[in-house]
Amino acid sequence: MRLIVALGGNALLRRGQLLSADNQLAAIRRAATQLARVAEGHELVITHGNGPQVGLLALQAAAYAGVPPYPLDVLGAETEGMIGYLLEQELANLLPASRSVATLLSRVEVDLHDPAFDHPTKPIGPVFAAAQAGALAAEHGWVFGPDGDGRRRLVASPRPMRVTGLAPLQWLLAQGAVVIAAGGGGIPVARSADGRSLHGVEAVIDKDLCSSLLARDLAADALIIATDVSSVSLDWGLPTQRALRQVTPQALSGLAFAAGTMGPKVEAACEFALATGRRAVIGSLDEIEAMLAGQAGTEVCVANFSAP
Amino acid sequence: MRLIVALGGNALLRRGQLLSADNQLAAIRRAATQLARVAEGHELVITHGNGPQVGLLALQAAAYAGVPPYPLDVLGAETEGMIGYLLEQELANLLPASRSVATLLSRVEVDLHDPAFDHPTKPIGPVFAAAQAGALAAEHGWVFGPDGDGRRRLVASPRPMRVTGLAPLQWLLAQGAVVIAAGGGGIPVARSADGRSLHGVEAVIDKDLCSSLLARDLAADALIIATDVSSVSLDWGLPTQRALRQVTPQALSGLAFAAGTMGPKVEAACEFALATGRRAVIGSLDEIEAMLAGQAGTEVCVANFSAP
Repeated sequence: MRLIVALGGNALLRRGQLLSADNQLAAIRRAATQLARVAEGHELVITHGNGPQVGLLALQAAAYAGVPPYPLDVLGAETEGMIGYLLEQELANLLPASRSVATLLSRVEVDLHDPAFDHPTKPIGPVFAAAQAGALAAEHGWVFGPDGDGRRRLVASPRPMRVTGLAPLQWLLAQGAVVIAAGGGGIPVARSADGRSLHGVEAVIDKDLCSSLLARDLAADALIIATDVSSVSLDWGLPTQRALRQVTPQALSGLAFAAGTMGPKVEAACEFALATGRRAVIGSLDEIEAMLAGQAGTEVCVANFSAP
Repeated sequence: MRLIVALGGNALLRRGQLLSADNQLAAIRRAATQLARVAEGHELVITHGNGPQVGLLALQAAAYAGVPPYPLDVLGAETEGMIGYLLEQELANLLPASRSVATLLSRVEVDLHDPAFDHPTKPIGPVFAAAQAGALAAEHGWVFGPDGDGRRRLVASPRPMRVTGLAPLQWLLAQGAVVIAAGGGGIPVARSADGRSLHGVEAVIDKDLCSSLLARDLAADALIIATDVSSVSLDWGLPTQRALRQVTPQALSGLAFAAGTMGPKVEAACEFALATGRRAVIGSLDEIEAMLAGQAGTEVCVANFSAP
């Protein structure tokens, strides 16, 4: 089977932890243990998020006097390097030496006419006091939105249209390599007006939507969205909360999920299931093997549920 | 022909310029124009330096209150992402769509017993006033050395022993992809005491020595070291300065070159020429084609000089 596993949330940092290199490494080690088991006997492509990391880099970039803040495409590329490296190394340490692990940079094309550019909605970085947010907005042209008692930077999150470098990725898979790609939803780029070249854009791309697109492009047998909850739940946080075990995209389409967190995962899973007739599973990083065996997570599939 | 082109200096930033994203992009665009021409009809692997970039990131990382500075392996990985992305994009914009450009992260193994760890010699980042350097040294455990009237951070630069991921690199080359790899001399890693795993180390690796190692591993037909001078010169900066056009490693071995700049390039070229009997050429980024044709740069070869 060819599997795409999208890592988010706790795979890269435990909730509430300081975003230090050590904490990231510890979380990635835990993820690698799961992934090494999944890699046995499967073709495996791993994608990952970068939300906290890109927020930190954006702040750091603005903190260095004299150098204009680096744009989000460049910062996204930095996170593909940083997270990809840590993941590649920990996974390679666990796999037999004969199994290559390769990390490819991935750019992802978005449409400059995407309405997301007019309405930035994706929060990155920490919560600032209003005065400090105002100063940063004035200095760097950043957009801020309310977050609790403070304000948080908002950036555009356009839809992924095309992942670059599919051919190299497939060559590596064909040779048996585990490939880490499309980190952070991919480095956001757009086509020039004359259509002849790509250039970076100030945006971030949802990693689940990007992973779903990649899974379709690669004709994956399953898309696994690994996060820090064990399944998709109805009435989340209410006494009536209940987990969904198997569900069709049609049944999900009438339900509302949190825009920034479960919403894109559900949408990504539905897109994959509808386009391919294959299953997408949303669940806990610690249960990937059980998710593959149909014994954990929420399985999104058009019909015909059965043990795989 | 299989070529390794190592980009340094002005390929990534013009001398004296601010290390902004825009300035980097402009320099990389110029390099990409040259590289796109070289890519025609050749197998091509591109490596690059990261000195200024890793220095900037180290400063930024230290500027973010509350998060310990990220170690140099992680920062090196970030620069492989940032520079690799910009280079890949500009080159892909110039090449036919049928020619893939792939950027692979590369780790490079060093020996923890390398004497470089006891004697950090590689300066990174800007020059600080003595008081500020003292504060940074106390806060982060950094080592500083004198530089003009101020002090500059010094880090270990151990010898590259092994480049990881050679198999994926060769699979991509075999399919005709232009590959960007081993950026910044590679992400520095070392083997654990039990020999079973690799982990990051606080170091930077010379990109020319690493490129030479990679060129030998890949059985390259030529190693091109592209920099901001047109050749290796004797009596550099003196009235008697004269360029070397063709020279043997034996003839170079008795000469002294600047430790931080031309020295490693000459050493890298000699290692490649001696190990392979093939030529290494040191010269200007703007003259790569002429260097390949034997009409520019300093050609280092064991013997039998002739037009290629």
